Parts: sequence; C-alpha cells; structure tokens
Amino acid sequence: MSTTELLLPLIDAVVVRALAEDLGAGDVTTEACVPEGQRATASGVAREDLVACGIPVAGRVFATVDPTVRFTAEVDEGARVKAGTVLFTVEGRARSLLTGERVALNLVQRMCGVATATARYVAALPEGTKTRITDTRKTTPGLRLLERYAVRRGGGHNHRNDLGSAVLIKDNHIVAAGGVRTAIESARARAPHTSKIECEVDTLDQLEEALTAGADIVLLDNMDTETVEEAVRRTRGRALLEASGGITIERIGELARAGVDAISVGALTHSTRAADIGLDFTATSARGSKPPAR
Amino acid sequence: MSTTELLLPLIDAVVVRALAEDLGAGDVTTEACVPEGQRATASGVAREDLVACGIPVAGRVFATVDPTVRFTAEVDEGARVKAGTVLFTVEGRARSLLTGERVALNLVQRMCGVATATARYVAALPEGTKTRITDTRKTTPGLRLLERYAVRRGGGHNHRNDLGSAVLIKDNHIVAAGGVRTAIESARARAPHTSKIECEVDTLDQLEEALTAGADIVLLDNMDTETVEEAVRRTRGRALLEASGGITIERIGELARAGVDAISVGALTHSTRAADIGLDFTATSARGSKPPAR
Amino acid sequence: MSTTELLLPLIDAVVVRALAEDLGAGDVTTEACVPEGQRATASGVAREDLVACGIPVAGRVFATVDPTVRFTAEVDEGARVKAGTVLFTVEGRARSLLTGERVALNLVQRMCGVATATARYVAALPEGTKTRITDTRKTTPGLRLLERYAVRRGGGHNHRNDLGSAVLIKDNHIVAAGGVRTAIESARARAPHTSKIECEVDTLDQLEEALTAGADIVLLDNMDTETVEEAVRRTRGRALLEASGGITIERIGELARAGVDAISVGALTHSTRAADIGLDFTATSARGSKPPAR
Amino acid sequence: MSTTELLLPLIDAVVVRALAEDLGAGDVTTEACVPEGQRATASGVAREDLVACGIPVAGRVFATVDPTVRFTAEVDEGARVKAGTVLFTVEGRARSLLTGERVALNLVQRMCGVATATARYVAALPEGTKTRITDTRKTTPGLRLLERYAVRRGGGHNHRNDLGSAVLIKDNHIVAAGGVRTAIESARARAPHTSKIECEVDTLDQLEEALTAGADIVLLDNMDTETVEEAVRRTRGRALLEASGGITIERIGELARAGVDAISVGALTHSTRAADIGLDFTATSARGSKPPAR
Amino acid sequence: MSTTELLLPLIDAVVVRALAEDLGAGDVTTEACVPEGQRATASGVAREDLVACGIPVAGRVFATVDPTVRFTAEVDEGARVKAGTVLFTVEGRARSLLTGERVALNLVQRMCGVATATARYVAALPEGTKTRITDTRKTTPGLRLLERYAVRRGGGHNHRNDLGSAVLIKDNHIVAAGGVRTAIESARARAPHTSKIECEVDTLDQLEEALTAGADIVLLDNMDTETVEEAVRRTRGRALLEASGGITIERIGELARAGVDAISVGALTHSTRAADIGLDFTATSARGSKPPAR
Amino acid sequence: MSTTELLLPLIDAVVVRALAEDLGAGDVTTEACVPEGQRATASGVAREDLVACGIPVAGRVFATVDPTVRFTAEVDEGARVKAGTVLFTVEGRARSLLTGERVALNLVQRMCGVATATARYVAALPEGTKTRITDTRKTTPGLRLLERYAVRRGGGHNHRNDLGSAVLIKDNHIVAAGGVRTAIESARARAPHTSKIECEVDTLDQLEEALTAGADIVLLDNMDTETVEEAVRRTRGRALLEASGGITIERIGELARAGVDAISVGALTHSTRAADIGLDFTATSARGSKPPAR
Repeated sequence: MSTTELLLPLIDAVVVRALAEDLGAGDVTTEACVPEGQRATASGVAREDLVACGIPVAGRVFATVDPTVRFTAEVDEGARVKAGTVLFTVEGRARSLLTGERVALNLVQRMCGVATATARYVAALPEGTKTRITDTRKTTPGLRLLERYAVRRGGGHNHRNDLGSAVLIKDNHIVAAGGVRTAIESARARAPHTSKIECEVDTLDQLEEALTAGADIVLLDNMDTETVEEAVRRTRGRALLEASGGITIERIGELARAGVDAISVGALTHSTRAADIGLDFTATSARGSKPPAR
Repeated sequence: MSTTELLLPLIDAVVVRALAEDLGAGDVTTEACVPEGQRATASGVAREDLVACGIPVAGRVFATVDPTVRFTAEVDEGARVKAGTVLFTVEGRARSLLTGERVALNLVQRMCGVATATARYVAALPEGTKTRITDTRKTTPGLRLLERYAVRRGGGHNHRNDLGSAVLIKDNHIVAAGGVRTAIESARARAPHTSKIECEVDTLDQLEEALTAGADIVLLDNMDTETVEEAVRRTRGRALLEASGGITIERIGELARAGVDAISVGALTHSTRAADIGLDFTATSARGSKPPAR
Repeated sequence: MSTTELLLPLIDAVVVRALAEDLGAGDVTTEACVPEGQRATASGVAREDLVACGIPVAGRVFATVDPTVRFTAEVDEGARVKAGTVLFTVEGRARSLLTGERVALNLVQRMCGVATATARYVAALPEGTKTRITDTRKTTPGLRLLERYAVRRGGGHNHRNDLGSAVLIKDNHIVAAGGVRTAIESARARAPHTSKIECEVDTLDQLEEALTAGADIVLLDNMDTETVEEAVRRTRGRALLEASGGITIERIGELARAGVDAISVGALTHSTRAADIGLDFTATSARGSKPPAR
Repeated sequence: MSTTELLLPLIDAVVVRALAEDLGAGDVTTEACVPEGQRATASGVAREDLVACGIPVAGRVFATVDPTVRFTAEVDEGARVKAGTVLFTVEGRARSLLTGERVALNLVQRMCGVATATARYVAALPEGTKTRITDTRKTTPGLRLLERYAVRRGGGHNHRNDLGSAVLIKDNHIVAAGGVRTAIESARARAPHTSKIECEVDTLDQLEEALTAGADIVLLDNMDTETVEEAVRRTRGRALLEASGGITIERIGELARAGVDAISVGALTHSTRAADIGLDFTATSARGSKPPAR
Repeated sequence: MSTTELLLPLIDAVVVRALAEDLGAGDVTTEACVPEGQRATASGVAREDLVACGIPVAGRVFATVDPTVRFTAEVDEGARVKAGTVLFTVEGRARSLLTGERVALNLVQRMCGVATATARYVAALPEGTKTRITDTRKTTPGLRLLERYAVRRGGGHNHRNDLGSAVLIKDNHIVAAGGVRTAIESARARAPHTSKIECEVDTLDQLEEALTAGADIVLLDNMDTETVEEAVRRTRGRALLEASGGITIERIGELARAGVDAISVGALTHSTRAADIGLDFTATSARGSKPPAR
Repeated sequence: MSTTELLLPLIDAVVVRALAEDLGAGDVTTEACVPEGQRATASGVAREDLVACGIPVAGRVFATVDPTVRFTAEVDEGARVKAGTVLFTVEGRARSLLTGERVALNLVQRMCGVATATARYVAALPEGTKTRITDTRKTTPGLRLLERYAVRRGGGHNHRNDLGSAVLIKDNHIVAAGGVRTAIESARARAPHTSKIECEVDTLDQLEEALTAGADIVLLDNMDTETVEEAVRRTRGRALLEASGGITIERIGELARAGVDAISVGALTHSTRAADIGLDFTATSARGSKPPAR
C-alpha cells in the first residue's frame, strides 16, 4: 500500500466483504471465456477531471483476489488529475483482473468522488482563510473510514468519527438535560478530559449561554450569514465556531469570510456522485495455449 | 419487520456493522445529558417528496440498540409521499432513540434516495411500455442487498446480483475468448442451464453474431438511439435487448420507444443523493426523576 | 493456488473456520511428541480410484497453519487417477504437517468424493448426448461453493447457486400463486430479466400450461421414463427440460436418451462417500537436535 | 429449543451461515409468487425409517428467517421413527416457510442421517456388551458439533472433539518422538493431567510397549480380529482398547465380542447418506387478499 | 439490561465470543449429571467488599446460553457493597445456569475488580478536589469497552478510547516531528477540530514550549511532585494538566493537591485482581423426573 | 513466528480484533507528526525481571499493521531474563511502529505477566517434586489460548481447556445427580472414553466415594494441609489428586510435600499484574524528506 493512512487491518475487512458480496458463487463468465493461463495488463483511467483517492484500496482488492497480481499506483493520493490520466496499472492473470474489476472500481470511484466533491468545496474558500471544510457522521454505513480518508485527501478535514470520540450536544440533548448550561456541565463532568465539548445552538441567546458554560465549540445550526457574522463578533474567540445545516457550495465563501472556524457539509459523503473511472485492458497475451479449465 | 423481502439474517449483519461503526466507545453525549429513565417519542419525517423505502431497516436499527423500543412504520414500502409525511414513529427510552438516530437515518435516507431516483427514471418511460429500468453491479460495497431492494420499491427491476448469478460477456471476455461466437458457446457449455447468457456488443455486426450464437440477452453498449432502433429491428425478438452505458434520464423515453426490453442505469446506485429525512422528537417525558447514571 | 476457480477470499473463510474447529486449544500431541525443529515430507495418496479435486484447498489449509510449508499439487484438478497416485506433496516443519493433516484430508476427501460420484453419473450418459448432469441446492451447509466446484470437476454442471440467482417455481409456489400460469407471469414480471424462469410440473397438463406461459425451463418432477419421453415430444424445443426427483444412476441412460437437457441429482452432494485418501510421511529429519519446546 | 445439548451460541453461527449461503440475494421465486399476507402450515415428514435428530436446529432455521414462525417438534430427539412419521410442524407466513425450507432440511436430513447410521452400527453390537461405537475427527468441516451430537442421539459415543482435548499419538508422532515409550512419556509430561493419553499401535509388541509406558487407551490400528483378541488378553485391563481403521458394520459383532472398549468408525460422519425427509405443506390460507408486494 | 451504557450490539460480540471459547464442544459434565428438566436458582454473591459492576453483562451471558433464564440484578451498577451481598439472582434450567456460570463470573469478576480498584484510587483523592482519576489505553485486548465502563462505575473517568479519538503526542512523535512546537502545529492542522491536542513532556522547558504552541492538555510524564507543582504554577490554567507514569495510590493525594486536572493510571486495567464473587445455588428442583438425555 | 505452539489461524483473530479496537478511526497523532517516509528501529525492553512470553505475538501485531516491518525475537520463549534485557527488535516505517506499539505491548505484557507469575508458583515447589502447578478456566475472556500458553512457558501446566474437553464434576453437579457415585457413573457412561473424569470433593468421605466410583482425578476443594495429607494416604494412587481453592504461594510447598499431583491456581490468570515492558526507539531516520502526507 502506498500510504500508511489506510491501515491494512481496517481496510481488509471492507475489501473482503465487498468481494464476497460481488463474487457470489464465482465469476461464471470469466471462467467460461478466459483461458486460465492468459495474462493481461490493464489501466485504471480517469474519464473526467478528479482528485485521485483510494488507489491503494483498488490494489488491495486485486491482491485479495490473487496475490500474484502486480499493481502500481501511477499518481499520488490526493493528486488533482485531468481526464485521461492513468491512475493505476495492474498486471497478472487475465481472469483475476476481470474478476476484481468491478469491486475495485466501485470502491475507488466512490473515494475519488468524495475527494473530488470535497475539493470543490475547499476551492470555494477564500484565499488565506482559516476556515476548514469538514465532513459529518452522514457517511455510507460500512465505509466511514474510507470516506473520511477521502475527505482529507480532497483537502477537507474530519469531524468526530463516532459517538464516542467527542461530545456534540444537539437540541434533543438540550431539552432532555433541561437547558444548554446543564447539558454542557453534565458533559464536561462525564466526558473524557481529552474530548472537546461541542454544543449546537439555534439562536444567539443560546450561543451566549453555551459560551458562558464553557463550550469548546459551538455549532451554529441553520443560521443565515448575517446571524453567523454576529455570532462570530459576540464569540470573540472564546470558542471555535462551526456553521452547519443545509450548506451549499454557494454559501462557503460568505460563511468563511464571516469567520467561522469550520463548515461541516453532510453532502460530501451522503450525496456524492461516483467519479467516472474505467479499466482499460491494454494488452492480453496467452501464456501457453491451454483452453479454459473446462 | 413489515416486509419479508428484507430477510433478517441478511439485514442484521449490515445493521450491526453500521452500529458498531457509529457507536465507537459508546454515546458519550447522550449518557451525559439524558437521564436513564427518560422516555421519548420521535417521528421520522420526509423533508421532501420521496418514495418511502427501508423503513423496516430503521426499525431494525432501533431494535438492535434496544429491544424494548416500539417502532411503527406509518407508510407502506414503496409509497410515494409528500414532504412532511411521517414515515415512522418510534417510542422508548430517550437514550436509545438518540443513540440509534444517525444510523437509522443514514440507512433509510440512502434507501429512499435510491427508490426515489429509480422512480424518476421509471416515470420517464412512455405509457404502456414493456421496457424496464434496471440497476447494475455499480452498487455501494456492503449495501447491495438494500440498494437492489430499493430499486424494486422505486418501480425498477434488478439486473444480476453478482458474478455468479448470470453470464454477462463483456468486451474483454470477447477478446480473451477470441470472438463473440466462441465466448457465447463457451459460456453456454459451462454456465448453469438456469443462467441466461448476456453478451455486450458495440456494433450491429457484433449484434448479428451474438444473435446467431444464441445469446439470450444482448447489451447494446453506448449506442445512439438510431442504432438502437436498428438493433431492435434486426433482432426481431430473437433475444432480449438491453441498452446501457451513460444513460441519462432524458434518453429514457426514446430508448423505450425504440423497443429495448431493459435500460440499465448505474447512476441509480452509484451516484444517488440521500433523501432528506429528519427525526423529530415529538414528546419527551421523564419516568421517575433519576439523574443520569453518573 | 493452481486454479482461479477457487477464489481465495471465498475459500479462506471455509479453511480458517475448519481449522479453528479442529485445532481447539492447539495440537497437544504434536507439541509433546515432535521437536520444533524437525522437518518432514508427506504425500497425499489416493487409496482408491478417484477424480482428483480440491487439492489446492489442501494446500491452502497447510499454508494457513504455517506459511513456510511448501505444497505441490501433483495432478490436475479433475484428473481421473488410479489408487496409489500421489495427489500432492507437502514439505516443511513436521509439526505443521501433522497439525494440518486432518482438516486438509477432510476437505479434499469430500471434494474428491463429490467429483468422483459425479463422474460416475456422467459416465452413465450415452455417448454424444446433450444431456447434462447437474447438482441441486441439497449441498452441505457451509460447503456449497466447494461442492459445486467439485461437481464441475467431475464433469457435471451446476444448477442455480441460491434462491436469488434464478427462479424455480415449485408446487407450493404454484398453489400459493393460484396456478402455473399466474406463477410464471408473476415471476417474469418481478425477476431480473437476466434470470431464467424454471417451473416444476407433475403432469403433462401442467407442462403444457408452463410452456404456454413461457417457462424457460420445465422441471419434470418424479416422472417415469415414458412420461418424460412424451414430455420431450410435446415440448418441441420450446423450453429446456430437466428431470429430477429420486434419480438413480440406473435411470441416467434412459432419461438422457429420452432427450431431457438436464438431470439434477441431489445425491451428488447430500449423500456422498468421502474418497479414501491418506497422508503418507515419506521422510522426516531433525534439523538441529533441539528437544520439544517443553 | 427442546434440548440444552444444542447450545444456542454455538448453533446459531452455523444456522446464520447456512442461510446466508442459500438465500443469496433473496428468494426471488417466493417473493414473486406468494402474497405477503398468505399463511401456511407444513410438516416435516420422514420418508423412510430413521432416528430423529436435529429437529430443534430446523426450528432455529425458521426462527432465524422469521421470529414469528411457530415451530413444534413432534418427536423426541433420538426417537426411532417409521416412514411417514411427522417430525415437526411449522406454521406462519407462507413466504418464510418456503424460504427456510431447504436449509432446514439440509441440516436435519444430515443429522438424521448420521444418527441413523450410528444406530445401525450400535444395533450390530452384541446384547449386553460394554463396547461403544464412537465417531472420529473425520467430520464435515463446519458441522462437527452437530454431527457429534447426532452420533450421541444415534446411541454412539464421541471420541475427542479436537486436537486440544485429548492426546492421540499416531505412527508419525511415534517416529518423530523416537519410539512409543518416549512419545507417551513426553505426552504425559506435557499434556494436561485431565487428558487421557491414547497411543495408536500396529503390532502386539508396540501394544506391550504402550502398556508399559502407561498409556490410558491403546488404539489397535487395522488389526484382524484374532490379533485384537490377543491384544485384549495381553492387556488385562491395564488400558482401554479401541479398535479402528476401516471398520465395517460386519465386523462390529466380532470386535465387540473380542472385548475392546470402543470401536471408532469414520464412516459415521464422513460418508453418511442424508436421511429422506420432506416438508409437506398441509394448509395454506390467504390472510387478507393483498397481491404480492410488487 | 439495566443500563443503556452497555450497548447491546457492542456487548453481545464479547459475550458470544467468550461463550464459544469456554463451551468448546459443549458442557459434557452438565449434560451427563444434570437431568434436562431440572430447574435451579442461584445467587451471585460478593465474597469480599467491592464495587458492583458488569452485572447486566452476567445477565446477558445467561440469556445467550438460554433465553428462558430469568435474571435479576439485585444492586445498582456502581454500588459499594459488603462481602456477602447478593449481586444478582438467576433462575431457570439447572443445566443452563451451570453452563453459563464460569463465563458470567469471569466477566463480572473482572469488571468489579476494575471498578473496585478505581474506587480505591478515587478514595485517595483529597476532599473537594477537581482532579480526576483516569484510565489509559493499557486495557485488556478485546475488553476495552467493558473496562472503561468499569472505570466510570468506580468513580473514575476515561482517557481517549483509541488512537483515532484524540491526539496524544508522545516523545517519539516529538522526535519524528522535529520538536514540540512542530508536532503540536502539525497535529492541530490535521486533527479534527473536535479533538483536543495533548502533548507529553518530560521537562518544564518542554511544558513551556507546549503551552506556547497551544496544547489543550499537557501530560507531565514521570515527574516528581515538586516539579508537578511548579508545572501547575507555570501553566496558570492555559491548559489542562495530566500526571502520568508509574503512579501509585500513595502519590494520588499529593498530585491532586498539586493541582493537576487528571491523573492517569495504567494499573486500573492492566494489573487488576479479579474481585471474589461466587455463584451459590440456593435451590434445585426437578420438574418432572426425566433422567438425563442419554 | 518463532514457535509453532501459537498457531496462526488461532492467534490472528485475536490480533486483528485487538488492533481494530485500538486503532479506531486511525492513528491521528502519528499521521500528523511523523512523515510517511521516515523509518525507525525500536527495542522491546524488559523493565523488570520476567519470564519472556508472547514475543511472536508482538511480531504478529506489527506484521498485521504493516507486512514490511522486520521483527526479530531476541530471546527464547520461556527464557528467564533480567531487567534491561532486549526481548525483541523491530525495524520499519516509523509510523507503523508507533501505531502498533500499544497493542503489541498490551499483549506481550500480559503474557509475560502470566508466565512470570506462574514461574513464581513453580519455584515454590520443592526440589524433585512430581506436583504440577496448573491453571484453571478463570482466564481472561477472549485470551484463554494466549494465557494457557503463557502458563506453560512459565513452567506450569494446563487444566482442561473448556467445558467440552474433560469432565469436572462440581458440588452442584453432585447435588443435581443425586450423589457422587451417580454423578461419576453418569459421566463415565456419557463422556468420551478419551476424557478423564474428575470429581470435586469437600470431605474425606466424599473422596472415598469418588475413588470407589472410579474417578480418574479427585479435586480436593479448599482443604487444609492436614486433610490433604490424609487424602493422599487414603487414595494410595488410585486416582490423581488435585488441590484447589484459594491457593496462595505460601501453601505450595506444603501441598506439594503432602503429595498431590496438581495444584490449580486461578490467580495465575485472573489476577495477574502486567509485566513492565517498554518500547525504546533506538534510531529514527528520514528516508527522503517528504513532509507528512497532508
């Protein structure tokens, strides 16, 4: 793997599951049509401009199907590439390449899709801003690890990974706790001292209450830009501010200029178009002339 | 579960995995802010017009978090509903509802998203057509079962589930086998007699060859509508015809009128926007007044 | 692995599970009696005439126990061999060979058993017939993949792999649907266009109804040979015909001559005798003279 | 479950895996042909004389498919029943019964097959003998727990479960250790004091050596009956004696009369014919008249 | 379960695995000695003073063995109880209680052990202190979730759960990054804005550098109490301070008085004595008089 | 792996699970602070005198994180080493070493802890004794295999592995069966002939009864040394004797001199202090000068 950020013991479970799902009872077509000894070379090619991401995962798919396959990443993770760029090449038994093709592409297309979408949001940030674009927990069930990685490769940042890795007090928690202050104090009393306390607010009054109670981060939920600007003014650096809720790419510039520290965007992961990538077989040669196994 | 099409032994693996991914070390926020005895009622509400789908899966998420939760589907699977419609209600320990919320929504939003997208393609078919809209194997790794189900609930049909459940001879198989005829004959000799043989063709000459060799289905890959019409004429019912490759909703009408039997659309599953659904807490009442567990 | 038809991500789950089941708390006997440094060579030998099958799976068992073991398949998958033939050789730490022996044999004996039984049925087919011998879903739970592969290596063919990969309408479906015609039409309306529709019939009247309704395959259930012959005559190639139900090897010839396309035989997998195969240790040499670890 | 000998946490893994293997992408036929609201009653019926075994496992299969199904065992585990006997009844949604049928039967047929085969061997023992029929580790990979249970229900006994639960010194261990005495002494020095030490011998000289070294059990490998008789005489109760190696049912009587304590028979599990059992649908009634889900 | 803090989908995997490990091929002793119909009542009793913890996990063990068992927690989680206190009672089939006993006790004894050890450290804190006792990542592999929960029930707090849920820069990270400041800045640039940045320091100079670079928490590694006091003075609330490294219970008081915010203690989990708890069978009655199953 | 006693298919499940638990969403700190190209060498060093154990497991942890890491065991399993001894060295990508460090240490510290504790008990045995120190089933759930191995490496012996691998009749079994004799006879009638029958007794009368009934082993539960001596006298070699119940190291000598065959000690595994072992980074060098990945 060309990156240590995709830890094998975490990735392999996803890859094996995806293959089991797609292989079913085995690749009948390939076994019937492709002689066992035949070899091939293929290239994963970007069919549109995109941010390259997840290429080592494609490599892992082919290696799991057949450890004798040779896989080479041709671009760096996170590289911005033009349509037509070769992202990776893969060489080995023709059967293995054909059998692994769809799962490899399904994964890498989704990861490039997320990275590319993230890069678009990041590109909408004003020059020199401190504001970061972040993901949310609205990820694809089972693929959170890969999608969060893709957000980073696209230039974005991650929000908390799961319910246990930071505190985020939402409206229903506030109601249940009996108010912003109580909720924040309960959270601080219980959460690890290594966790930040983030509190979602709907109004500037709630913001004030959250700041007074010592929230580390305040999430400004669904506020218009003017209100966000006022929130930044009132906060005076006492907490990080995060804008969230129905964020479109058009609002990124004004929200960043308003001075929030982070803008979290569910659409990075819950509504991403797969990037268009194809696998072109560039050479196929029979080694020996054995007919298919039966 | 309100439908037997979502078989529990298949669904539960997905649900448990999704919960493990999202719960991490446990829901710190909820444990800190919400008293253990508190109860709540919440409604899953469509925030936009959509095709309802996957609601029993949401129920299964809450039941897995806490078997004492009471979950009620409020609409039928596949129902076309307006923004504002309550899709399901859920009642039980407030903690359990808050902890399960995100995973339940992530799954149901994606499933409604796929069903709704499918319904849009299906709506583009001419009145009285025999043509069906189908999915492809370009599904989200790990969620194929749910997405194929959602395609059906949206009015579409499924393509083969995996590499083992039907033969689909693609260009690389043809090259490896040494031609369309050889490929089809090899496939028929080897594949189960219960499998249809589908062959992808790029030209009308290939179509003729595939028909002569006895293909059950011919996939017309990336052909313009005129060529498709000609393909239908030449085929004269000797095989089913499937149009595929970069299909947009705009072309559905003309392709169906050209007379193909199926149009397969990767975008149904690889590039779907999650439907907008929220969980509204409609009532919360403390049962007893015990403070949170610590 | 010497064949790409046994896909590693599918096989390994079976192998690891089988080893965990048999190793329990570890191989006490071997640890006590065999010095850690000792090496050995062993041969898997056919103790009766058989069809070789599953040898790469034996290799995978030893590799899983100890990746340093060297395993060599000595015959091709599907080869007809005489008693006394060496099927594979394995060389490495004596401990690893002894620990893996039973699981390797259990798997390969079963696979050879299925392949050999299949070959007997296939040998009963008349010269030049188009009829194929197929398996059923009456396989050993957990080993379907291996057993279906073994059927192919024995010269047979596979039936559908699972409930999702083709339609097979049985008597209870017919009753539930309200008749043969309704059942077939419902199936065609719902099943993927890539699935064939097979319908089981008990009488020639039902056959006629199934053909009229457009079944792709008709399963003639428990019919005597005369009725099967009449069924072939009436069908006139409008559908494939499959004979099934209590098939014995004695009836294969007459059923094939009657002209059915397939004869499905549950006994290939549900009642197979394991082939007799032993592991002969042909050489053992201490490397160094260290006594057992304790 | 009607018996605590089939522990749920052990059985359920087998059942879930078997269902996942057979359901594939879901039961297309049943979904197409059987209305969701329809209910049915079915009986599992012995089609031949057999020893009933594994009926609670069938119940567990249906319960896993659909927890609302009502399952009743109609005979005791281990009961000797005549052809035509109803083994169990099951009542619930028609779809659930049809979907679970094959897996339930595959498991119960195999378990009844093993129990019935065992009972035949046990019946061949002379009246009043102390000799027991036992299984071996030649079980079906993944199903050892179920098969050992079936051996017990058939009147047989179990041998050690796995490599860690007792010591069995075989010829290769003896060679590696440098002789029978060394092997037994090493084993006693290392194995848990709760494990018996069993040693396989080929000759009466080896028997003597094993007895002197204090073996708890001596396995007489592939000896003719006369030699076995001599072995019993020489042993004089100093160890348990087990006859093994190519045992046929014809030899059971003479081996038992020779006075061995156990006869271990691989064929009980490695070459068992599935018992013939069918699922008869005895009643089906539509509840409501909703057509199939799509 | 009597607490929502032990989420079922997380706990059950641990419980099932523990049972599979201990049941092996089934509970031979119980099956032989205890009639199937016999019922029993048993009490889990503290044999020493302890902090009760993990009782619902014991309940889950028995429920997994046998869903018909009735389990009642007799004390609250976290309760300080005297030797002789009944922690839970369990009633049901005698076989099920005996089979589940060891796993239930192994888990609850460990959890009570961790909670009790934690409570001893917490009791060593001065009255009215703000200092908290926390765990570390030095937990038992596979049981982190249970052990962290037990720390909370004992009155302690959790540190970060895993490598992904907060930043903790250790000496090797500092060396690799080229200094404290670079390390902290790199971490802030990359880590989620929801993560705190903690930095380990060995000297007061490093402390100053960490504070200047904006660390949220500084871990004072292996410092004597005087240095810790000086660290608190210099920090002036600019960061949380955590004392760590070879902490004994004797130093808790002085470290807390020195004013650190947290003291992290690996020994809470890596070297805990299991609490002494026994299962007393208080009543056994045969229901019916059936002898053991065979 | 340097020992075949830690079978890979058994160990790897533990290792992968432990890593998944600790890695969470990935090692944020290391990714931020350590450049991808940087390499390092580290040594696992004993910080106290200990019995080395589990070093190959540490190797397996690093290999699972990153197959390119080079790991070398520097001492034999079971070696008695002084504080300061290097147990293993590991070389490779700095990121991989840092990410795997905690899990490797958590496992090896526990295993060394168990081995070292065992060695202390073994050292308390009188010179030349036949008595063995054994473990019990009071092991850490999920780690039994590793802990039993560590007991052996510490010079102890194992008791039965699980409920299925030998019979141990306890007081509740005796009550349920209706007496010592009935219990032993039932057990012998049902248990595999390869299993020993052990019976726990509280009094010398029960001992006599157990011996008469033919118990292979008698467990003397919680008896004072005088009673144990009397038990040995009365037994006269008719069975193995095992002392158990609240054994402290102080009593080992007198119990062994009394002549019991085994002393089983739950504390070996249920209350072990982790051995103190650290990972010292002895060299770090940047290969190339690429900054961290983002």
